[in-house]
Amino acid sequence: MENGAKKWCFQGNKELNASSISVRGVFNMLVSNLNKEDRRTMIRLCRADPTDFQCFRTTPVAPDAITTTVQSYRFNSYPSTVGLIEGRRAVADHLSKDLPYRLSPDNVFLTIGCTQAINIMMTVLARSGANILLPRPGYPQYEARAACVGLEVRYFDLVPERGWEVDIDSLEALADENTVAMVIINPSNPCGNVFTYEHLKKIAETARKLGIFVVSDEVYAHITFGSKPFVPMGVFASIVPVINLGSLSKRWLVPGWRLGWIATCDPDGIFEKTGIVENIKNYLDITCDPPTFMQAALPQILEKTKDSFFSHNLLIMREAANIFYDRCKEIPCLTCPHKPEGTMTVMVQINLSKLEGIIDDVDFCIKLAKEESVILLPGVTVGLKNWLRITYAVEASALEDGLGRIKSFSLRHAKMP
Amino acid sequence: MENGAKKWCFQGNKELNASSISVRGVFNMLVSNLNKEDRRTMIRLCRADPTDFQCFRTTPVAPDAITTTVQSYRFNSYPSTVGLIEGRRAVADHLSKDLPYRLSPDNVFLTIGCTQAINIMMTVLARSGANILLPRPGYPQYEARAACVGLEVRYFDLVPERGWEVDIDSLEALADENTVAMVIINPSNPCGNVFTYEHLKKIAETARKLGIFVVSDEVYAHITFGSKPFVPMGVFASIVPVINLGSLSKRWLVPGWRLGWIATCDPDGIFEKTGIVENIKNYLDITCDPPTFMQAALPQILEKTKDSFFSHNLLIMREAANIFYDRCKEIPCLTCPHKPEGTMTVMVQINLSKLEGIIDDVDFCIKLAKEESVILLPGVTVGLKNWLRITYAVEASALEDGLGRIKSFSLRHAKMP
Repeated sequence: MENGAKKWCFQGNKELNASSISVRGVFNMLVSNLNKEDRRTMIRLCRADPTDFQCFRTTPVAPDAITTTVQSYRFNSYPSTVGLIEGRRAVADHLSKDLPYRLSPDNVFLTIGCTQAINIMMTVLARSGANILLPRPGYPQYEARAACVGLEVRYFDLVPERGWEVDIDSLEALADENTVAMVIINPSNPCGNVFTYEHLKKIAETARKLGIFVVSDEVYAHITFGSKPFVPMGVFASIVPVINLGSLSKRWLVPGWRLGWIATCDPDGIFEKTGIVENIKNYLDITCDPPTFMQAALPQILEKTKDSFFSHNLLIMREAANIFYDRCKEIPCLTCPHKPEGTMTVMVQINLSKLEGIIDDVDFCIKLAKEESVILLPGVTVGLKNWLRITYAVEASALEDGLGRIKSFSLRHAKMP
Repeated sequence: MENGAKKWCFQGNKELNASSISVRGVFNMLVSNLNKEDRRTMIRLCRADPTDFQCFRTTPVAPDAITTTVQSYRFNSYPSTVGLIEGRRAVADHLSKDLPYRLSPDNVFLTIGCTQAINIMMTVLARSGANILLPRPGYPQYEARAACVGLEVRYFDLVPERGWEVDIDSLEALADENTVAMVIINPSNPCGNVFTYEHLKKIAETARKLGIFVVSDEVYAHITFGSKPFVPMGVFASIVPVINLGSLSKRWLVPGWRLGWIATCDPDGIFEKTGIVENIKNYLDITCDPPTFMQAALPQILEKTKDSFFSHNLLIMREAANIFYDRCKEIPCLTCPHKPEGTMTVMVQINLSKLEGIIDDVDFCIKLAKEESVILLPGVTVGLKNWLRITYAVEASALEDGLGRIKSFSLRHAKMP
């Protein structure tokens, strides 16, 4: 075949390339900068996936539940597009434990992890001219998906000096008649804070005043190890309707399982009246589903997992957060404004004036990868340039090692007084 | 909360509702028309999912492979966005058995069933102004997804009188400088035919002449029980680059597992040069993945399944196709122009002039559901009004029962001479 001579009419969709500023995309770029001669283990403090380490291992209840359902041969059929009723009921019961009302299975839609839950909501909201309010810093999947579906995004700030609380004034200033919803991530990825009851109530009241609903990304639900308890946004659903996004990924330490949900917390049925529920169902008709046997395993997983599994993991996370915070204080060019109290992530500011030959956060991360085989996420990926997003859900020795290498790197690049 | 008084700024995306003419959507509509007083079992001859029946049961190799990987605790991490290397290699080796060249793991991307493979390709091709050529009748997922992403679709005809071959002239007449690709489904859903080597070669040559590539949907690969063998389109990849879509769903009788692939059959590297591969990878960065432990199970499933499992299923399918064809000949208002020789589906034309009080195919199906508790898919769903798509991958007794009820229905509605 004459490769050079043949003219092909097809070419790729260039817009897709531009929108692909994803955590995974940046991670791949940083890994490509590793020094192949460095015999030390690469240390990833960039992805909230602790399962590389033995100390972070799911409960046997989970794989045993999968084994039961797959070996039954009863769940090999196409699932219902909204999800298997047993799975939906189990999620409804699970979420209802923390709410002042009861969710029904009809309020729950099973999804392929929180990722698909986000994708579905962005698609459902993308009518012509609409905009959505996202937190900054935030989680890039929202923006990436919004770009794909033509939904305009606007950013409200989270304030580091106030424990990463929402800047309510900036929130109100952004909204207009085309604003459909706001997103809150609680406990917060990437900041690692946990919002208080009072603050969440204020957010709910503000959303109501603006006539928009709240998408509450609770993928890190109950992963709190500081003084503040987790409060689900659905608690305020009598003030404003809430879409809850969640999954097994973080709390059960199975990010690779891709099993999550959308739950409508809406005692007054606003989502039904405004057509949002119909849209979700219609989109589910044409999109993919989690495997049926995995949906069928949800009752066993959600009901039989022991509290001791959760509390054991929180103990490890608390210890990791302490190690991180103590070591970070020893690194002069880095400032952590708020000790992490939840999730597996934290934001840390780079003081570039204390460094020589480092242009910005991306440069910091590329050079760190090259010189120390440590991978961090540059803050620009999550909306804050010259910050870093660090994950600390790693084994203690790897965390100490990684932070030690970051310290060496900063000392090596420290500006001479 | 004052439901009536509060004005909410959000409402659903009305375009989503319009585009949701899906197999599943129509199925749900027909099921809602069933007569609840009818004590007979509902017979579904509308969805290509035979797993309700004991005679259609997957090989133990498959669930055993899942049990092995999930119980290993080694596959709970996020997968690589292109898919686990072991899984990709297994699919590459599997497909290469039928090709005159070897695929590498780099040619394979793992997806959530063929549904996601379709969704990815439609998204990747949706640059402004582009169009894609789809077969009619065809599979509505293509159109539904194209509508979501703003990709224009144009239809070429499959000709019932010629065993559902492609009308090559109509294909050529449709293409213009914005045409990027054509889709072929082989073995054909919904028609049930298998394309010959010669005809596929002609299609390849035509695509080459038009400067477009071929998306070959081979989800029913090797499900052939007539005289024509299955020929993968990738055999002609030296003529025209081919994207192969496939999955475990049909051949392994696990449609609920949602595990499939995109394979680039492209020895001359055209997809790399034109940016298509980069687009696929970038989109995979922001979309969902199949569970990691399922991807890890692919080598065992693809390599260890015995031929006797496949040949046993084909025997059952051939018998079902025979039962269908023989009974169909006894129903005066229905004509099957081409005896099914592959897949689990067949197209049958309704002769409305022989019926009283039946307006069209949708009316036929609604009344059949109501009066006989039999569910068929109206042909308009797949692009041919006043035809029916019938699936026959059901237990022989259920098939006989269902066809018997269709015959009763047609006699009851027969126009008096």
